[in-house]
Amino acid sequence: MTNKKLMNEDLKYIFHPCSQMKDYETLPLIPIKKGKGSYIEDFEGNRYLDCISSWWVNIFGHSNDYINGKINEQLGDLEHVIFSGFTHKPAITLAKRMISLTPKPLQKVFFADNGSSAIEVALKMAFQYYKNKGESRPLFVSLTNSYHGETMGALAVSDSGMYKEIYEDILIKTLHAKSPALFDENEALEDMRNILKFNNGKVSSVLIEPLVQCAGSMKMYNASYITELRKICDEFDVFLIADEIAVGFGRTGTLFAIEQANVSPDFLCTSKGLTGGYLPLSMVLFTNDIYDAFYCDYNEGKSFLDSHSYTGNTLACAVANAVLDIFENENILEKNLKKIKFIKNETRKFKKLSNVLEVRQTGMICAIELLPFSQGERVNLIIFQEALKMGVYIRPLSNVIYFMPPYCFTQDELKKMIDTTFTIIKSLKY
Amino acid sequence: MTNKKLMNEDLKYIFHPCSQMKDYETLPLIPIKKGKGSYIEDFEGNRYLDCISSWWVNIFGHSNDYINGKINEQLGDLEHVIFSGFTHKPAITLAKRMISLTPKPLQKVFFADNGSSAIEVALKMAFQYYKNKGESRPLFVSLTNSYHGETMGALAVSDSGMYKEIYEDILIKTLHAKSPALFDENEALEDMRNILKFNNGKVSSVLIEPLVQCAGSMKMYNASYITELRKICDEFDVFLIADEIAVGFGRTGTLFAIEQANVSPDFLCTSKGLTGGYLPLSMVLFTNDIYDAFYCDYNEGKSFLDSHSYTGNTLACAVANAVLDIFENENILEKNLKKIKFIKNETRKFKKLSNVLEVRQTGMICAIELLPFSQGERVNLIIFQEALKMGVYIRPLSNVIYFMPPYCFTQDELKKMIDTTFTIIKSLKY
Repeated sequence: MTNKKLMNEDLKYIFHPCSQMKDYETLPLIPIKKGKGSYIEDFEGNRYLDCISSWWVNIFGHSNDYINGKINEQLGDLEHVIFSGFTHKPAITLAKRMISLTPKPLQKVFFADNGSSAIEVALKMAFQYYKNKGESRPLFVSLTNSYHGETMGALAVSDSGMYKEIYEDILIKTLHAKSPALFDENEALEDMRNILKFNNGKVSSVLIEPLVQCAGSMKMYNASYITELRKICDEFDVFLIADEIAVGFGRTGTLFAIEQANVSPDFLCTSKGLTGGYLPLSMVLFTNDIYDAFYCDYNEGKSFLDSHSYTGNTLACAVANAVLDIFENENILEKNLKKIKFIKNETRKFKKLSNVLEVRQTGMICAIELLPFSQGERVNLIIFQEALKMGVYIRPLSNVIYFMPPYCFTQDELKKMIDTTFTIIKSLKY
Repeated sequence: MTNKKLMNEDLKYIFHPCSQMKDYETLPLIPIKKGKGSYIEDFEGNRYLDCISSWWVNIFGHSNDYINGKINEQLGDLEHVIFSGFTHKPAITLAKRMISLTPKPLQKVFFADNGSSAIEVALKMAFQYYKNKGESRPLFVSLTNSYHGETMGALAVSDSGMYKEIYEDILIKTLHAKSPALFDENEALEDMRNILKFNNGKVSSVLIEPLVQCAGSMKMYNASYITELRKICDEFDVFLIADEIAVGFGRTGTLFAIEQANVSPDFLCTSKGLTGGYLPLSMVLFTNDIYDAFYCDYNEGKSFLDSHSYTGNTLACAVANAVLDIFENENILEKNLKKIKFIKNETRKFKKLSNVLEVRQTGMICAIELLPFSQGERVNLIIFQEALKMGVYIRPLSNVIYFMPPYCFTQDELKKMIDTTFTIIKSLKY
């Protein structure tokens, strides 16, 4: 079975996510036969170093023996059971562990299946909290350049240009405050304050991606913004929702990014790394105060009746517990400190290249921003293809090349990722 | 480890889906230790016959040996890989098989993680189709009493009373035509025609749950409505979206409910049974005409850029292929015919009970509608608890008790499900 045969078979049937399908006429759609550790391998034996963790989800490598073992154990007992009226040990254990690992005010969890659905849960819960108290606060405030997901609520609170613009007519209106990743921190805080002041009593919550706006070209900002934002949210009595879907689970150096600001959000949404790149699962953590606003006699009509069929999926919870085991047993965060430093040192050389505008890093996320090129040029695709030829899989966001490797990368693998990319960028004719 | 200890541990941390948490003060929250075939078992050795397929998802029993084996095989090769730019065999095989099993005009698939996300994909794609052709058609039409999911787009097209009302201020406006399950078929068709006429050129699509509005109290209607609706959709040039999330995979007797109307939708959304109750996965099938509207040079800005991190999850696709294997290898649909007939015969006796208003059945879904009781009475919870004591798990929707068993139920198990319920309803003091 060759790559080409499988690719052609695929293209007959499948519309791929986040893809202009016509691009596959000239770009390789690569059928992957197997994955092991840091590598994925196609049907012709070519191996690719997975430098973006298969879309930011894989943290301990492909086909991880420990996680595989835990799935097997769980399969013998229970694959899944309805999570309304019933429960199971993997979910209880996971909930308890997640609460112990996140800021103290977060004491309750709600499960969902993917990041977008987690954001929708937080939005609906934040809105209904006030509704249950007799107020309607239909506005949400997020940051410019933000990305929170694809379902129509999550998309409405995003400011993601082409991902959103086309749908404006079918999305509710939301507000966007200046992002500290694009504006001066004080200016961004002032803008947020003005928006909350002007819309006082109409906003239920403010959403942020702490420290890194990942889909927004890996733009980064300081924790101090979040510390101040927390005060502003308190001042105007609105919830702070931390979207840690991409930045959680060690990506920024700490287990959760918001820890670096020494504050707690009212809601924390997590997914992706939660299941180590294995299965869709998401969790929303929140405070007892929020939980209490829904706790009453059924007939009061204040229940939070959200659900998905596979909410609290047993297999996915077992995987998430295995992921937390590995974090604990192998001192991952501590080990990552060395890797973070190594990446920092090794990527310095990019700054000397004339086509590089900026090199920025937050923990295990490192971005190299090139001088802008016109959309027609699509230099990003050339970089992507050249790297693939050298066995390195990176996926530039327009003129921003980034590294977001699984934590199982060895120093040699990190070096290969960085040096291959360096060679390519250096050779670019612009 | 006792049930009670685990329940108390759970209630410290977890907010369960579709639950008023206060109800768990008086109702058992049951920790499930294991599942095998038709039964789930708690931590005190009590076994419950899972008569609602763990929320309509499980079709071949819990911890199914064949499916477990297929997960194991897949784990050795690849657990998951990014599905943008890459692909894998389980997805290709699944896409090909699903296209061969659904109406012929459906020739392409898009993957997502849960039913709500699938609905959102269909809504966005239907809207963008017209946008790409220069029209803005921001309206969607669904049926009264409909349920399409929980994310804000899926909720907006639902007409699910308490599930939706509280959120009106944060949902886009949509239109609802009279449901043929609640109104005379001609009246319902006339209403749909009037709505489409009045909003001509502003509606992108009409959504229906073919044959059974499951969350809407298992209200049922004839296939002839769908046959006529297809003509009306063609007349007004709007898409027909079939939400087969609950009714697909043999629930109504045929593999997909819409087959019974001898027409094809433009979009078919499926989830739940797709993975036999194992893992979250959903698929949207659609026509080549729709696919073609997005196929162009990237810079034209007409791409459909929707994505979830775990889109096309490899393990979930492997499970879905195993589910299709079982359908084929074990002649499930043919075998179900006998079970459908058995349920029909055995539930006749309910009609004689003075508190039973109607018994209705479509394939493997059977509903017994009781005389209404006031919300304060919550007779449904009494029925639920009494059945549990007898080892039978049913989950009434207010005054509608329904059976939606996995297809692995033996005749004895079907009889136990029906007779236990009969005994309880007969003993009710109203």
